[in-house]
Amino acid sequence: MKKKLNEYLKKESSINSNCGVFGIYNNPEAAILTYYGLHSLQHRGQEAAGIVTSEFLESENRHRFNIHKDHGLVSNVFRDEKILTDALRGTAAIGHTRYSTTGASDKRTNIQPFKVIFKGGNLALSHNGNLTNTRELRNHLQDEGTLFQTSTDSELLLHLIARSKKESIEEKILEAVSFIKGAYSICILTDDKLFAIRDPYGVRPFCMGKLGESFVFASETCALDIINADYVRDVMPGEMITIDKDVIKSGEPKSVYFEKVERYRHCIFEFIYFSRPDSIVFEEKVDKVRRRIGKNLALESPPPKKEDDRKRVVVINVPDSSNTATLGYFSEAAKHNSDIKNEIGLIRSHYVGRTFIQPGQDKREMKVRTKFNIVKGVLSDRKVVMIDDSIVRGTTSKLLVDLLKKASPKEIHLKITSPPIISPCYYGMDFPSKQELIAARKDKNLEEIKEWLGVDSIAYLSEEKLLESATNTRPETGFCTACFSGNYPIQIEGIDEIPKNGFDD
Amino acid sequence: MKKKLNEYLKKESSINSNCGVFGIYNNPEAAILTYYGLHSLQHRGQEAAGIVTSEFLESENRHRFNIHKDHGLVSNVFRDEKILTDALRGTAAIGHTRYSTTGASDKRTNIQPFKVIFKGGNLALSHNGNLTNTRELRNHLQDEGTLFQTSTDSELLLHLIARSKKESIEEKILEAVSFIKGAYSICILTDDKLFAIRDPYGVRPFCMGKLGESFVFASETCALDIINADYVRDVMPGEMITIDKDVIKSGEPKSVYFEKVERYRHCIFEFIYFSRPDSIVFEEKVDKVRRRIGKNLALESPPPKKEDDRKRVVVINVPDSSNTATLGYFSEAAKHNSDIKNEIGLIRSHYVGRTFIQPGQDKREMKVRTKFNIVKGVLSDRKVVMIDDSIVRGTTSKLLVDLLKKASPKEIHLKITSPPIISPCYYGMDFPSKQELIAARKDKNLEEIKEWLGVDSIAYLSEEKLLESATNTRPETGFCTACFSGNYPIQIEGIDEIPKNGFDD
Amino acid sequence: MKKKLNEYLKKESSINSNCGVFGIYNNPEAAILTYYGLHSLQHRGQEAAGIVTSEFLESENRHRFNIHKDHGLVSNVFRDEKILTDALRGTAAIGHTRYSTTGASDKRTNIQPFKVIFKGGNLALSHNGNLTNTRELRNHLQDEGTLFQTSTDSELLLHLIARSKKESIEEKILEAVSFIKGAYSICILTDDKLFAIRDPYGVRPFCMGKLGESFVFASETCALDIINADYVRDVMPGEMITIDKDVIKSGEPKSVYFEKVERYRHCIFEFIYFSRPDSIVFEEKVDKVRRRIGKNLALESPPPKKEDDRKRVVVINVPDSSNTATLGYFSEAAKHNSDIKNEIGLIRSHYVGRTFIQPGQDKREMKVRTKFNIVKGVLSDRKVVMIDDSIVRGTTSKLLVDLLKKASPKEIHLKITSPPIISPCYYGMDFPSKQELIAARKDKNLEEIKEWLGVDSIAYLSEEKLLESATNTRPETGFCTACFSGNYPIQIEGIDEIPKNGFDD
Amino acid sequence: MKKKLNEYLKKESSINSNCGVFGIYNNPEAAILTYYGLHSLQHRGQEAAGIVTSEFLESENRHRFNIHKDHGLVSNVFRDEKILTDALRGTAAIGHTRYSTTGASDKRTNIQPFKVIFKGGNLALSHNGNLTNTRELRNHLQDEGTLFQTSTDSELLLHLIARSKKESIEEKILEAVSFIKGAYSICILTDDKLFAIRDPYGVRPFCMGKLGESFVFASETCALDIINADYVRDVMPGEMITIDKDVIKSGEPKSVYFEKVERYRHCIFEFIYFSRPDSIVFEEKVDKVRRRIGKNLALESPPPKKEDDRKRVVVINVPDSSNTATLGYFSEAAKHNSDIKNEIGLIRSHYVGRTFIQPGQDKREMKVRTKFNIVKGVLSDRKVVMIDDSIVRGTTSKLLVDLLKKASPKEIHLKITSPPIISPCYYGMDFPSKQELIAARKDKNLEEIKEWLGVDSIAYLSEEKLLESATNTRPETGFCTACFSGNYPIQIEGIDEIPKNGFDD
Repeated sequence: MKKKLNEYLKKESSINSNCGVFGIYNNPEAAILTYYGLHSLQHRGQEAAGIVTSEFLESENRHRFNIHKDHGLVSNVFRDEKILTDALRGTAAIGHTRYSTTGASDKRTNIQPFKVIFKGGNLALSHNGNLTNTRELRNHLQDEGTLFQTSTDSELLLHLIARSKKESIEEKILEAVSFIKGAYSICILTDDKLFAIRDPYGVRPFCMGKLGESFVFASETCALDIINADYVRDVMPGEMITIDKDVIKSGEPKSVYFEKVERYRHCIFEFIYFSRPDSIVFEEKVDKVRRRIGKNLALESPPPKKEDDRKRVVVINVPDSSNTATLGYFSEAAKHNSDIKNEIGLIRSHYVGRTFIQPGQDKREMKVRTKFNIVKGVLSDRKVVMIDDSIVRGTTSKLLVDLLKKASPKEIHLKITSPPIISPCYYGMDFPSKQELIAARKDKNLEEIKEWLGVDSIAYLSEEKLLESATNTRPETGFCTACFSGNYPIQIEGIDEIPKNGFDD
Repeated sequence: MKKKLNEYLKKESSINSNCGVFGIYNNPEAAILTYYGLHSLQHRGQEAAGIVTSEFLESENRHRFNIHKDHGLVSNVFRDEKILTDALRGTAAIGHTRYSTTGASDKRTNIQPFKVIFKGGNLALSHNGNLTNTRELRNHLQDEGTLFQTSTDSELLLHLIARSKKESIEEKILEAVSFIKGAYSICILTDDKLFAIRDPYGVRPFCMGKLGESFVFASETCALDIINADYVRDVMPGEMITIDKDVIKSGEPKSVYFEKVERYRHCIFEFIYFSRPDSIVFEEKVDKVRRRIGKNLALESPPPKKEDDRKRVVVINVPDSSNTATLGYFSEAAKHNSDIKNEIGLIRSHYVGRTFIQPGQDKREMKVRTKFNIVKGVLSDRKVVMIDDSIVRGTTSKLLVDLLKKASPKEIHLKITSPPIISPCYYGMDFPSKQELIAARKDKNLEEIKEWLGVDSIAYLSEEKLLESATNTRPETGFCTACFSGNYPIQIEGIDEIPKNGFDD
Repeated sequence: MKKKLNEYLKKESSINSNCGVFGIYNNPEAAILTYYGLHSLQHRGQEAAGIVTSEFLESENRHRFNIHKDHGLVSNVFRDEKILTDALRGTAAIGHTRYSTTGASDKRTNIQPFKVIFKGGNLALSHNGNLTNTRELRNHLQDEGTLFQTSTDSELLLHLIARSKKESIEEKILEAVSFIKGAYSICILTDDKLFAIRDPYGVRPFCMGKLGESFVFASETCALDIINADYVRDVMPGEMITIDKDVIKSGEPKSVYFEKVERYRHCIFEFIYFSRPDSIVFEEKVDKVRRRIGKNLALESPPPKKEDDRKRVVVINVPDSSNTATLGYFSEAAKHNSDIKNEIGLIRSHYVGRTFIQPGQDKREMKVRTKFNIVKGVLSDRKVVMIDDSIVRGTTSKLLVDLLKKASPKEIHLKITSPPIISPCYYGMDFPSKQELIAARKDKNLEEIKEWLGVDSIAYLSEEKLLESATNTRPETGFCTACFSGNYPIQIEGIDEIPKNGFDD
Repeated sequence: MKKKLNEYLKKESSINSNCGVFGIYNNPEAAILTYYGLHSLQHRGQEAAGIVTSEFLESENRHRFNIHKDHGLVSNVFRDEKILTDALRGTAAIGHTRYSTTGASDKRTNIQPFKVIFKGGNLALSHNGNLTNTRELRNHLQDEGTLFQTSTDSELLLHLIARSKKESIEEKILEAVSFIKGAYSICILTDDKLFAIRDPYGVRPFCMGKLGESFVFASETCALDIINADYVRDVMPGEMITIDKDVIKSGEPKSVYFEKVERYRHCIFEFIYFSRPDSIVFEEKVDKVRRRIGKNLALESPPPKKEDDRKRVVVINVPDSSNTATLGYFSEAAKHNSDIKNEIGLIRSHYVGRTFIQPGQDKREMKVRTKFNIVKGVLSDRKVVMIDDSIVRGTTSKLLVDLLKKASPKEIHLKITSPPIISPCYYGMDFPSKQELIAARKDKNLEEIKEWLGVDSIAYLSEEKLLESATNTRPETGFCTACFSGNYPIQIEGIDEIPKNGFDD
């Protein structure tokens, strides 16, 4: 029974994994600025992108919502400038970049933002995160005759808002939000208002900025930077911020805290891997945390010593995901061991290459090879310390190790800037099921993983040091480490208690 | 006030004008056969096309609905064979071709079939026609918190079905249908059933066919012909036919008549112009009716006499829309006047050409010229009788007349195979508002229209003879002639009585 | 040996079969007008299209040649208006539509117009027809070190021009032309001149028109009509017309007759099928000839008599190719047999449909069915006389007959408006090899063809009457009837004498 | 006069700037392997790509050349797998990636490889480099009646080969090569042979590899790595290597040295910027040279000292072009100044973003901002040392400096890993004319450049140290440093002597 539930949950969560959201209010260039914002959030989702604008039609004295969304990268979806300048007119906009899923051909309807018509006019929504109590709500709504266009949890919220008997749109949204659980950083656009809402645990990042007289919301501050907007503060966990004409006049956003929890549960993986190093996330500079992570890993798991007179130990990064952590690791390790060198041992090609299978060749191997090449000269005959951010299934790590070996290194030492991932994520991170997580597999203990990967040693950062790295400057904040610990801070539908280490199916 | 209503109605009706629908049940090639069916119905809508299939996933013991729809001709939307063979798997399918509208960029959501999820599983719908009481229903549903994805009336029916408290899907659909008024020929596909429903007045055509063990529904019989299916009978006005596994076993479709009216109100324009001449529509061969129309027009309005010894009167068709009627006109007229000749005076290019404006040139003129060219030799110095099907705004007729004049004909006599169009259509035909209908314009009596067009005479077929042509073999049947008479047989929302000759705004 | 030669010739000729050419000089809208001209010539080639313009760059005091060409219909190749308005600037242009070939992926280079650079500047060429002595010339040029970009005979002429030692471009072209044999209607554009050249036998049509101060050349007059240009006269067989600035001033085109033959050899198939009925071709109205062809066929091969009291004989056309001939046939036959009726028995869909194969279904059958449907009511139980233009392989005729039979006609009588095709064409018409021509097959005499097609009778027009139809008003002119007679009027490379009835391989 | 010449030369050279070439012989997967090779060489040209294969048609006992090329990235041009597997069959292939130019719409013909037919059969060519004596040769050939399809110098070579009177193809190529001057690394494919030819000065890199029984040629070794081929040796300056069936049997490539020069003139810019750091180029590991360059720059131009107790000096790279040099700079500088830190101050987005102009915003600024973002935390209040590879026009440097300033650094010190660029390149590097080179501008001395850029100091690497870095392990080799010195080692057409420091126009 639990197995079935788990499958169900995985299916749901896989649909709405981590994404990028953006919103802007009171700017004649709303669509173009949203385009740039989404471009900056491209790393949060490459499968699809979309923008909705609210345009006031003077002649008809009403608002029209314009929408354009499609599969593909932001620059492809909006490759025709006319879409931004002519079709997406309006002074308010929300946008969305969507993470890759196993997309069936009909999944075009799942691309966000969603746009609907309800009694209060137009309504559009962009959501990053994952709701955890959708099944019951969905069943209830369907029983009452509600039609669903998509299989996403995000659509649910729109129905809840539309069905609310409350008077004002603010109250409707708050009532709708009171029904849902899970992780959500949401922008909602109505005819004349923009709302930013974040779940009480603050699982996903969400920030507010200002550009002249315009208000901006984005998943990460890098989306403020690109349009020259100033970072004001985060949308706080359990907060709904409203922007409307009055706010523009007063300059003061309206804020409501709809729920307070004892301790936030920010997703620690945003620091480890997902967010850009140039962003401020959870009110903390990502690159600083990542550097501390590298330092702590160096303290817990220093590089090996050289064996003879030659300087034989090199520390390399996996570009670009472990660049910053590698700097931290090396600078700390070099204090204790002046023989080591920091080197560029892997070159990454940023041209995305299609991979065509040849007889007798492995598709995934070619995929790694179109992305990475080794710099033989710095690896050959060296003890190589490779810093990587995480091991999920282990397949990519293995292919990277195989690639390194073509340079005939003396030894390979794998240092991971996170603890072993042993439990799936129900709050938006695209991890596979427990069975596929190599660190959770019964048939593979650490020694066996090492053997399977073909490395001379493997070391993970401890959860304790990871948390220390993340909370260094703000000890009061809290993090979700469910993927490492199995401790799920937010209730998941249909389960009274989630067993430590996740579901044991 | 009436003006506003009229505008509202026009806006609504312009969204859902005449279209083609198709459905098939119990065939492993459901998608490909639907593709061919839609290709045959292409003349009923060139803007967009779509197919939904119901696929039973054995391993998951559930049905999945696959969908593909897009702007463009059927052959473009389904240009990739894999869409039909791989993506659109399943043994039941419905399809739709959509008539051109002034499509805003966001109108992709308006393309049919619609596909939703409700408590009973999957649900998809294709609709030809136009509902006339949607405003009230829509308002009511929105007040109860229903979200609308589209601005079409077709979506309404889906909500009504989903919200029905009735037990069975048949009862739900019948309840939903009981709320709506207007013209509708509808295919509904559920996980395991296919429904064909037609409004009590039978405004739009709808037929049933059989292909081996498969049941087929289509707007016109030409869609049965292309897939070699046999025409069985029409879906009757006020009838709902259900096809499911039991029906396949028994070979007998289930039929329910949900409403009976005294007299049908078939759209007479299907005979005049819209349907294909090779179709059987309203249980009558279109080409036969069209030939009778031509004959009656010849009797009411014979060609002029030649003036001198040369055979100088030629009868020409406007290809391909008046081909059959011209044959009828000529064969009748020749009985009384052996001097006339039937000629091909206009050549139509079937390559659709984009029209690029040049300075000092009229776009519409170029459009006519990329479509038609004159055969000067048969027109020059002749009295030309041009048979055309109808005059709506008059602009195309004028451009055709201008084109003819390049051949320096002696005279031009315009014979129209329908009465003057003086009222808009609220049941699905894409006519403009009363103000744009040249025959309804206060500033243009018949003489003035003749002058404006630049012809030597103009003659319309009388409504009486038109009806006689259409009811020749089936005097008991009834037709809607609202566009000629202003007598609207089906109630239109918010109006107790529609004034004769329509709204006088 | 002859077999090999024949294969070689077929291969060559298949590359350059019948096409449409267009040229215009001295018009600021040269590209747009060429676009419209090519649109009118679309029936002469649907595989590819292209335009080259000559633009004078004032700032650089030189001419630039702009080019755009691609596979596809004219409206697709030029679907982006900017191509015509921005990219293809200039006051002179030539264009080309290309007939379908078995195009290898690399055949993009074969699309015309060709554009090259030679010592005299830019040079571009559009060619309709087929050269018959290319092999020797090509070998000679290659031996001298000439590179060929294409496998077409048209490129040859460009090399001959470039290599000419003559002073003026006129002389160079004339010298080049003196080397070639075969059928050619050619537009050549240089930096500041436009040339129109036609082979001495006048195999392919070629006309000159005037639009204000601009000179226009086109394969058929329908391309003059669409741009409102006046037809002036034909480019005469063996004539080269030059248009340049002086000509614009004087208003008088320069004309040189480079070769005179005793008797022209116009391709009679242009009248039977290829040219549009609204064109004037070989100084004769196509529709008039086609009507006479129909009449003569009726005299030679009248329809059958009805058997009993009902009017049971119907004459039908194959739309649109036999429309005009059918009118001629019927009007003549009706004089002698008042019982027959002219009917529309086949409806043609002008939406080009892709054909997807289903298991157990024939692709070609579906292709015919997506193009034609029968009007059962006028065929059922009738003696059907179907007028068609020609029988090549016989496969399409057979599929049409099979289609007709679905209506259960009493009898089917096939009347062909041309004699049996027994020999391939080396001058540009896309006929298959002798082995594939059903009328040339040893294993099929007329009786056997009748049986194979499944018709009750089959009749061809005699060559004598065909020629009479074509020369009715101009007895002095001559025609090539090689496909019917095997008498090849223009020498074909490597053969001293072509045997009557072609090569007997 | 010299000005005009210079312009001419620039125009020519801009057409054929640095590119990537690839060739493979004797492999059933020739096209797919070439695809991967080109993917690895994508950094050498992003404008267009193409592949030609030689396929032996057994049934016809002849070779067919298949070609596919288009504008766009390698993965776009070959996005359809069928192109590689079905269209590009054959066991030998050559490919090309083309650097961006100001492409007119007609420049499709300029995309390489070129494929032609000559008396010896098929002939195809891929060229990296730039010829310097094309004008005279081109004029001569045109005078003799040669047609040119393109405006590239590469086509010239094909004509020279075709026109050679020599017997064998080897001799023809060698004769053709004897006429040309300049920089060239060329793959030539004939029906059954593959040739690799490199200019006597070895300006551009060119290497040979082996993959099983197949021979491979590529601009850089990274293209060997991706297909797992082993690097054998360079194609040597002045060498032509021939691969044919005999070579496959013997395993020994045939080599001819057609010209020997005293000292090679490798393009030093390949080390500074153009080649990938994981390649071996000019028989030297690029990353090693680049690290030495960084070290030498640190010695010549160390970072500033910190001012007070805080560690305030940070060294940052411009990703990814100065990654390796920055490592070298930092490791050397840190030896002498332990206070400095290596930081990641700029984050590069590898999603190529289209840039849409907004009113009041600079397009180029947005372009830089879609590519780079700053990590404020590591820059703010610091003395920032930014290592960049070169300054050409200075505009990008200025935009980067402006971007850095948003983080309010204390100071900015710009360290360039190359000397000032003062002269254009006629051998393939895409530099602008002398007037646009900021270091060559009369109105800007070093102090003024510093001011204009807004930096606190600017330092270039000396030419001496640059050469020392490049020749460290191979002192005997020679480099072209014309862009820094104006000393052009290879004669340029029409000039007896190129003045030191280039043309003073």
